[in-house]
Amino acid sequence: MRNIIVGFLGCGNIGCGVWKLLNEFEQDLHHRSGVHFQVKRILVRDMKKKRDQAIPEELLTTQVEDITDDPEIEMVVEFMGGEIPAAQYMLRALEHGKTVVTANKMALALNWHLLQAAAEKHNAGLYYEAAVCGAIPVIRTTIDSLQANRIETMMGIINGTTNYILTRMSQEGSAYEDVLKDAQRLGLAEPDPTSDVEGFDAAYKISILSSLAFHARVPFDVVYREGISKVDAVDIAYGKELGYTLKLLAIAKRDGNVIDARVHPTFIPHEHPLSSVNGSFNAVFLHGHACQDMMLFGCGAGSAPTASAVVSDMIYAASREKPHHPTFKNENRLADGLEVTNNWRCSFYLRFTASDKPGVMAHITACLGNEGISIRNLMQREAVDGHAQIVLITHEAGECAVWKALRAIDQNDAKVEAMIRVEGK
Amino acid sequence: MRNIIVGFLGCGNIGCGVWKLLNEFEQDLHHRSGVHFQVKRILVRDMKKKRDQAIPEELLTTQVEDITDDPEIEMVVEFMGGEIPAAQYMLRALEHGKTVVTANKMALALNWHLLQAAAEKHNAGLYYEAAVCGAIPVIRTTIDSLQANRIETMMGIINGTTNYILTRMSQEGSAYEDVLKDAQRLGLAEPDPTSDVEGFDAAYKISILSSLAFHARVPFDVVYREGISKVDAVDIAYGKELGYTLKLLAIAKRDGNVIDARVHPTFIPHEHPLSSVNGSFNAVFLHGHACQDMMLFGCGAGSAPTASAVVSDMIYAASREKPHHPTFKNENRLADGLEVTNNWRCSFYLRFTASDKPGVMAHITACLGNEGISIRNLMQREAVDGHAQIVLITHEAGECAVWKALRAIDQNDAKVEAMIRVEGK
Repeated sequence: MRNIIVGFLGCGNIGCGVWKLLNEFEQDLHHRSGVHFQVKRILVRDMKKKRDQAIPEELLTTQVEDITDDPEIEMVVEFMGGEIPAAQYMLRALEHGKTVVTANKMALALNWHLLQAAAEKHNAGLYYEAAVCGAIPVIRTTIDSLQANRIETMMGIINGTTNYILTRMSQEGSAYEDVLKDAQRLGLAEPDPTSDVEGFDAAYKISILSSLAFHARVPFDVVYREGISKVDAVDIAYGKELGYTLKLLAIAKRDGNVIDARVHPTFIPHEHPLSSVNGSFNAVFLHGHACQDMMLFGCGAGSAPTASAVVSDMIYAASREKPHHPTFKNENRLADGLEVTNNWRCSFYLRFTASDKPGVMAHITACLGNEGISIRNLMQREAVDGHAQIVLITHEAGECAVWKALRAIDQNDAKVEAMIRVEGK
Repeated sequence: MRNIIVGFLGCGNIGCGVWKLLNEFEQDLHHRSGVHFQVKRILVRDMKKKRDQAIPEELLTTQVEDITDDPEIEMVVEFMGGEIPAAQYMLRALEHGKTVVTANKMALALNWHLLQAAAEKHNAGLYYEAAVCGAIPVIRTTIDSLQANRIETMMGIINGTTNYILTRMSQEGSAYEDVLKDAQRLGLAEPDPTSDVEGFDAAYKISILSSLAFHARVPFDVVYREGISKVDAVDIAYGKELGYTLKLLAIAKRDGNVIDARVHPTFIPHEHPLSSVNGSFNAVFLHGHACQDMMLFGCGAGSAPTASAVVSDMIYAASREKPHHPTFKNENRLADGLEVTNNWRCSFYLRFTASDKPGVMAHITACLGNEGISIRNLMQREAVDGHAQIVLITHEAGECAVWKALRAIDQNDAKVEAMIRVEGK
């Protein structure tokens, strides 16, 4: 049996989940992996705080050096959340040659290059399965099971809060603000929901995932980001009628040297595997040149599911003789020779409020036609107060051409109300 | 760079797919893994057969010893299919200390204990991701990502042929025989379809998967097996009306020391993630005590997807300093202390042809009530020629009680037409 002495950075919801899993499942873990994890110290902010788990008080410390600088501690597991000081503490642990396991997408996405450089320099491991999609083994699958693939597309529902909100808006026809309040009351959204609803959380995660998928760092700041706070329930309803479900998708595509990386509300056809991923579930759909279509679905958050991934990383780290690192050059910028486009190609859902008089439809369709954009579905609702709703879905088109057409269309008689990208055949 | 000399056993559809992937993707594989695979010899039955890939003739041999006994060959990759001689050849390779990668579920499921014993004795690796669900990393996920879980349920659509047939029967209302003929014409079903349609293929795979999930060998011969050849389109239609989709599911459950292991046509609710897995796609749904619900979806067969898994195993094997073996005792029998039940608990779909006269419904419901079986949904169709169709779905009940009730019900006035298990809440 190998005894591994571990330090925890943080002991909130996830930390307590990991503590619980390590203790309750100790015998099985030991039998299956030959490893025993002994938690020696736990960094906390408040020694007196009441915790879910009965953790011996002598393990707690408020001094990070008690963990990062203790030569006996071999592995440091971080679940503090936030960028600073988590990233600094992990860096310090790596510089002391300790293996780091983290569930912190923000600290990783923004500081990956520094952390990886320190890990490589000090021959330490750096593992982060729990940082993306909780229990779902998306990181491990990308690294260990899809090496023989040129991954062309990755599309994920990788933020549970926004998926919960959009699912309820879709099922009940409710307004965004109402469902958000409900989600906050239920603890499914933060008091300040910005990171989730504006897509930051999903952007951190797709930055990490797409870097691994494309074997090239796709830094956070090149990810286009649009949240769900401006989504109107009426568009969800029209989309549904046309056969589409609205999701906040994180999308990464690679075609030769051109990369798409974006997070935005997206319509996908009802038949698409992602379309039935409801509530706070997460899923990542991908297409590789050999594996073809694949989807991984599961719990993207929560104490026990995240602990499942953290402990799996701890065992994975313990079982490797040499740490595993991505082989791409990890600098905080896009690799030379690659290019990020904002002129992605997809279909577009467009909604206009049009005056109920001759020539308006001709104006809209002519402006689209001028940019080479053709229409797949079109529906016009009977006018109320002299204004009709026109909803259409285009065939595949370029983002820039669509914006140009929308600028030409937008005027008193034809107001552009919504533009939502459509993915998935 | 590490050069690994490889021998192929077989060179059909999958063998050619692996050859193609290794060659076309050589540079990327090398860059990502630091390994180069050099295929030295390929065992074939017919040297003159025309193949998809331009394979140099001097690599071909009809003598297995040219591969298993060649000390230069470090890794043997098997895709012959069938039990014998594939299992014998793999055994011979392992006895010569060679790592074996196989895509052969039948040979593995029936001879796993022998193969693993030889692998352990000769310190050789044995890998089989491609044997179950093609490109989908179900084996790797179970072994490497879910170690910290007590997996309670695994339910899979793990045979593409039957899923294709059932999907078409469901979408078109067609009869089994007609769709099967079509599938055979399209190359999606074998000329002798027994292994697929009678559930043998799925039973091999669930035997392997459940053994890994439960950390105890669940041998093939304890898997209950019922195929789709007796499925009537009328039951698919009634089920659909009640909110259920018919799938051939492979199911493994563990509750304490009692194990369920079975393959049979199963209704699942439309909302269940498995329900939208259509055509020849595969998916495995599982529930672990920590990870909660999870599903892996993708291509379960085909040359390129299977090659994706085979090459992934080759790299995985090459990157490990010590071979990885399951930690459970691998004998060809259920482990001491475990028990396989055939009295599983689930809901049941029942269909009766009933005479259109008083008392028949009372007879049916009384017989069910006598066994403690309660009814969740019931629907009766207007009688034609004096006979009505009665369709019902029970609440959760035991299999044995249901059979007892059905024997009591079955008589001239109430003929039992169908009994289909229902899974998934």
